[in-house]
Amino acid sequence: QLLELVDTLLEEATDLRGKQVIVTAGPTREPLDPVRFFSNYSSGKMGYALAQEARRRGAHVTLITGPTALEAPVGVKTVAVQTAEEMYNAVNKRYQQADIVIKAAAVADYQPVDVFAHKQKKNADEWSVALERTKDILRFLGEHKKEQILVGFAAESEQLHTYAKSKLERKNLDLIVANNITTEGAGFDVDTNVVTVFTRDGQETAYPQASKKEVAKQILNELEAYMKRREA
Amino acid sequence: QLLELVDTLLEEATDLRGKQVIVTAGPTREPLDPVRFFSNYSSGKMGYALAQEARRRGAHVTLITGPTALEAPVGVKTVAVQTAEEMYNAVNKRYQQADIVIKAAAVADYQPVDVFAHKQKKNADEWSVALERTKDILRFLGEHKKEQILVGFAAESEQLHTYAKSKLERKNLDLIVANNITTEGAGFDVDTNVVTVFTRDGQETAYPQASKKEVAKQILNELEAYMKRREA
Repeated sequence: QLLELVDTLLEEATDLRGKQVIVTAGPTREPLDPVRFFSNYSSGKMGYALAQEARRRGAHVTLITGPTALEAPVGVKTVAVQTAEEMYNAVNKRYQQADIVIKAAAVADYQPVDVFAHKQKKNADEWSVALERTKDILRFLGEHKKEQILVGFAAESEQLHTYAKSKLERKNLDLIVANNITTEGAGFDVDTNVVTVFTRDGQETAYPQASKKEVAKQILNELEAYMKRREA
Repeated sequence: QLLELVDTLLEEATDLRGKQVIVTAGPTREPLDPVRFFSNYSSGKMGYALAQEARRRGAHVTLITGPTALEAPVGVKTVAVQTAEEMYNAVNKRYQQADIVIKAAAVADYQPVDVFAHKQKKNADEWSVALERTKDILRFLGEHKKEQILVGFAAESEQLHTYAKSKLERKNLDLIVANNITTEGAGFDVDTNVVTVFTRDGQETAYPQASKKEVAKQILNELEAYMKRREA
């Protein structure tokens, strides 16, 4: 903990120095009644590691996070949200001032159509829950992009390349970080990840398994290299 | 942390000494696909506090817990589960050897009928998810009760007395701990609780707001008093 603090304070000045960086992290929870909700298995570890690493490189970092079991990183402004809608509002409010947005959160893409004010009793043997799409935050960011650099994630269980490259295009991203959640040592609730980074200008780099802290460095290195190419 | 450890090791011998106690805690998660699940807002704090207090009173405690952000209590055998079905199996396996079962877990009462092996793509604007009832663990324990003492919980947002007393009867419980989750300082993800304890022999005691650690003492005091009356 202390070593981590020292490490964070001894920031390394890179091209991220002084940049306004928004990182989103964790799952969202979409309530069905005061007791029940829909969510996903995101632990928030990847996003928190990215926030910490961006801070270490001298960026001003805002971490917008769904419910996780993690401690807020030192030196980072942390904003806690619950639902996809709250996440959307928190990101949107800060988007125009941002230089870089890294959307590592696993935002729920469906929410219950009806949210009950009281706990529903379990009378029925079956219960059909109607879900509707949440606001697509990444699509919104892509559509309203000016000079911002937009980094998205694709967590897939099949056809990783196809889905990731299609998402990069559709959402108007600059980088996409893709991982196959069925690969051992990748994905949710583990301390490591195995990613492939695709960039808007056609680069594709597959990395071996590494700690999420290490993967955060890989992603920000890719990001800085992309920024350099874009400016050139 | 150290003080807590000392506190736990300096056990207080009471009528729980040497008893085999099972405590369940936390939520369960019912998967829909490799990414999405249904769950509830239980933090596990009440169950963990009960496990720790039972241990402090000299009981042999097994804590069967869904996913929480909490550290396993010292001196307690902890078994981690994810789904209602895993919780059912873990409790059932140990039930005949148990003297007391305290079911503080907020087990999901519905699970998706279809569990998809691959992440479902968000193509449709609407998605109707069919849910079916999970196995009713408490009912099963009530039906197969021999000498065990069975403690249940009722977390309600309305009609607390009616629901709690009806559940005590229907599930063949010895004690039920009822709390209104809409009361400030009660219920999920807070460090305090406000409970009313109902016993099989007709006692009803309402307690003021207290820390979950303190509420654990209230509940186990009620339990020990009930055991004394039953033996008399």
